Amino acid sequence: MVRVHHTFDAVVIGAGTAGLSAFKEIRQHTDNAILVQEGPLGTTCARTACMPSKSLLHTAKLYEERKKFPSNGIHGSEHLHINFPEALKAVRRKRDHFVESTIEGMDSFKEFIVDGRAKFETPTKLRVDDKLFHTRATIIATGSRPVIPSLFKPYKEDVITSDDLFEMRDLPERIAVIGLGPVGMEMAQALSFMGVDVLAINRSESLGHIKDSKINATILRKLNETMEVWLDADYSVEPLDKGYRVCAGNRSKEVDAFFVATGRTPNLDDMGLKQLGVPMDSHGVPHYNARTMQVNGSPIFMAGDVTDERAVLHEASNEGRRAAIHAIYPDKEPTPRYPRLEIIFTEPSIALIGDTAYALRNNGVITGQADFSNQGRAVLEERNHGRIHIYADADDGLLRGAELMCPDGEHIAHFLSLALSRHLTVKHLLEAPFYHPTIEEGLKTACKDALKQLKAA
Amino acid sequence: MVRVHHTFDAVVIGAGTAGLSAFKEIRQHTDNAILVQEGPLGTTCARTACMPSKSLLHTAKLYEERKKFPSNGIHGSEHLHINFPEALKAVRRKRDHFVESTIEGMDSFKEFIVDGRAKFETPTKLRVDDKLFHTRATIIATGSRPVIPSLFKPYKEDVITSDDLFEMRDLPERIAVIGLGPVGMEMAQALSFMGVDVLAINRSESLGHIKDSKINATILRKLNETMEVWLDADYSVEPLDKGYRVCAGNRSKEVDAFFVATGRTPNLDDMGLKQLGVPMDSHGVPHYNARTMQVNGSPIFMAGDVTDERAVLHEASNEGRRAAIHAIYPDKEPTPRYPRLEIIFTEPSIALIGDTAYALRNNGVITGQADFSNQGRAVLEERNHGRIHIYADADDGLLRGAELMCPDGEHIAHFLSLALSRHLTVKHLLEAPFYHPTIEEGLKTACKDALKQLKAA
Repeated sequence: MVRVHHTFDAVVIGAGTAGLSAFKEIRQHTDNAILVQEGPLGTTCARTACMPSKSLLHTAKLYEERKKFPSNGIHGSEHLHINFPEALKAVRRKRDHFVESTIEGMDSFKEFIVDGRAKFETPTKLRVDDKLFHTRATIIATGSRPVIPSLFKPYKEDVITSDDLFEMRDLPERIAVIGLGPVGMEMAQALSFMGVDVLAINRSESLGHIKDSKINATILRKLNETMEVWLDADYSVEPLDKGYRVCAGNRSKEVDAFFVATGRTPNLDDMGLKQLGVPMDSHGVPHYNARTMQVNGSPIFMAGDVTDERAVLHEASNEGRRAAIHAIYPDKEPTPRYPRLEIIFTEPSIALIGDTAYALRNNGVITGQADFSNQGRAVLEERNHGRIHIYADADDGLLRGAELMCPDGEHIAHFLSLALSRHLTVKHLLEAPFYHPTIEEGLKTACKDALKQLKAA
Repeated sequence: MVRVHHTFDAVVIGAGTAGLSAFKEIRQHTDNAILVQEGPLGTTCARTACMPSKSLLHTAKLYEERKKFPSNGIHGSEHLHINFPEALKAVRRKRDHFVESTIEGMDSFKEFIVDGRAKFETPTKLRVDDKLFHTRATIIATGSRPVIPSLFKPYKEDVITSDDLFEMRDLPERIAVIGLGPVGMEMAQALSFMGVDVLAINRSESLGHIKDSKINATILRKLNETMEVWLDADYSVEPLDKGYRVCAGNRSKEVDAFFVATGRTPNLDDMGLKQLGVPMDSHGVPHYNARTMQVNGSPIFMAGDVTDERAVLHEASNEGRRAAIHAIYPDKEPTPRYPRLEIIFTEPSIALIGDTAYALRNNGVITGQADFSNQGRAVLEERNHGRIHIYADADDGLLRGAELMCPDGEHIAHFLSLALSRHLTVKHLLEAPFYHPTIEEGLKTACKDALKQLKAA
């Protein structure tokens, strides 16, 4: 069905979340487009990221809850144990379901999917294996892949990334989690809840993308409850007869394997971009306009994780849609980006809303704080660990962002994210009802704390 | 310290949530006020309502989660059992903590608290036992108490209300829960999760204050999973040698005790209101202005559960504050009420936001729907039961309200409640980011469904 020697309105490269979103949007406007995909279908989200990681966290949190049984009159928790192979199998069963749904979602346009690796010959001419395609616009949505630091190259049989973790038949007894970004923190906590002896190592002091030192400290205290954490660690690895010794300064610990989550690199190799002469950054990512997603001065667009920025699904999907619209209608007024929203699904969950780096360095911004150690609902459910900081303009209380680790933090984050996208003030938030007894009352405390500072200002 | 034969600016009757809120607000403006309280201190919320019920639900939900253990590779759940006396003791331990905090919160004004029962002699003269107090304004915040239908009067040793439940040393094996409002549904589910054999009976078809028949059916299906439910039931009770036989039509079931949650009555007896000649409704509640809380044509104000309306803490607290402001400053412009928000903390939780009765009978309102049986995050966490209906004006998409039962519904309710209080449209909601994979994406589905109908209209 695919016509060659013909000019397409658009070619999308990559059938992941961003590419699918772009392609579906394009098909609202034209049938004259194809989707090029190398290798098996199924998104990163469904295969190795969002879905299987949240499944493993679900199992781990379920198991961790047994610790609350004795104080609530529930007997017998000493007989509970988790079988790693079965737990991993359950995760894969769910993952396969989500991968299948993603692929089924492509049924209506599968004759427009071309299997192969795309390479630019000119900005409007693409080679896919032995075929040549002419196109008015191209959207690159090839995603990214985990990077393994060279230090670990010699030990690769014991190095696990998010690409491998959910394929494992069993879990090691002792593991070092390298890198405490979102993926590292989630998996370190999941593994530690399941009973794996976890050493978590981070090169820097800051966890995730958190900028606020008090929130960072709140997270660190929680992680420390179930694992050993080394921050700011310049570590080395030494192989032993059985396992490895990891050292940093005068600390040392033996482990059996490594879960490496130090970062990802965009899949842009061998695409011929360099030969096109498009301007690029040091990671080989072309400069592009973050609103139109267009690569400066060319009919090429970027979307999703390949941009090496905001690698989260709702952004990938939104970027795909925006890239598609601007690829088809170059003169269309660009739509605004979402305010930044990042959630880490630990227990309690962590979130970052808005431009918190800006908020924290700006003197005209105040911080409304709430601590959860004595928060009603949190105490009642024995999960009274956490902290919310909201940032607002000192003069009018306009919400600028928030950082938090608190029970049900993922939901508090959506509430604040709606507020941010509607340019609400702290006073607006306090005009809405906060039900009792809820975690949202903790947010109310932070809002009231901010309001007091506004009045004082 | 309390001065008699002197005219107070205000007297507050009742040191519950509404009365405390009123009294604290009054003290921002004047010291010339007293708080009259009969009997021990501590709010209904902390003693017998919000806090102990949520504690029992917490224990019950913890125990219920064991059912997910086998499919996630967690072995040994067959050895778990719950010890009722210990579970109830744990609930009381937490409850006592919250009662104490409430009482500690009164420390700063305890010399202004008068112990005794207040009775009006004139609209500005109150008798408290042998003392007479003159006052410019009075706020009645005496709360309410459970009502036991006369049918159960002969069996009172086996009739439990929310006043008694948390005082019990053990739980019956079989119980009939009478009345499926918020309290009835929460406690019926908690008891059934804990392994009590529950028969739940409701006089009408509708559960809680739910108006939407599809949401009602979603709730009913969930309740039916762990208990027997009789709706629209004209039931009778017959005592047996051991326990009772409950019958309705050709259905019958034996139980050991009754948890009666058929309603509450305002504590207005013997207050002398009738003699004052203030206009009253058939329940003896004086007619009052819902914005100023003032009883028509008199210097008397109402706040909290005694109003026999919106018996939830955030309203009681807000009503107390509004009554106080209008008691002190009669000419002050009234502040708007909160949009209606009701949450029932079952699993999944139930919520009602806004004036859904209006929305459902109005032809100009469309319904955006989402079902959770195949919702990503809900499937992943094995809690894929639920439904969200949002109601919006057909012409411009202005949000009018919502009814829902869904996982984390209490948080979705706060999100929608903020939207309602800011007069947002469905399109506004879709301009905010929805993170993946979250329950909020289910709400997004409902918003998109609504948007489609707007476009079609």
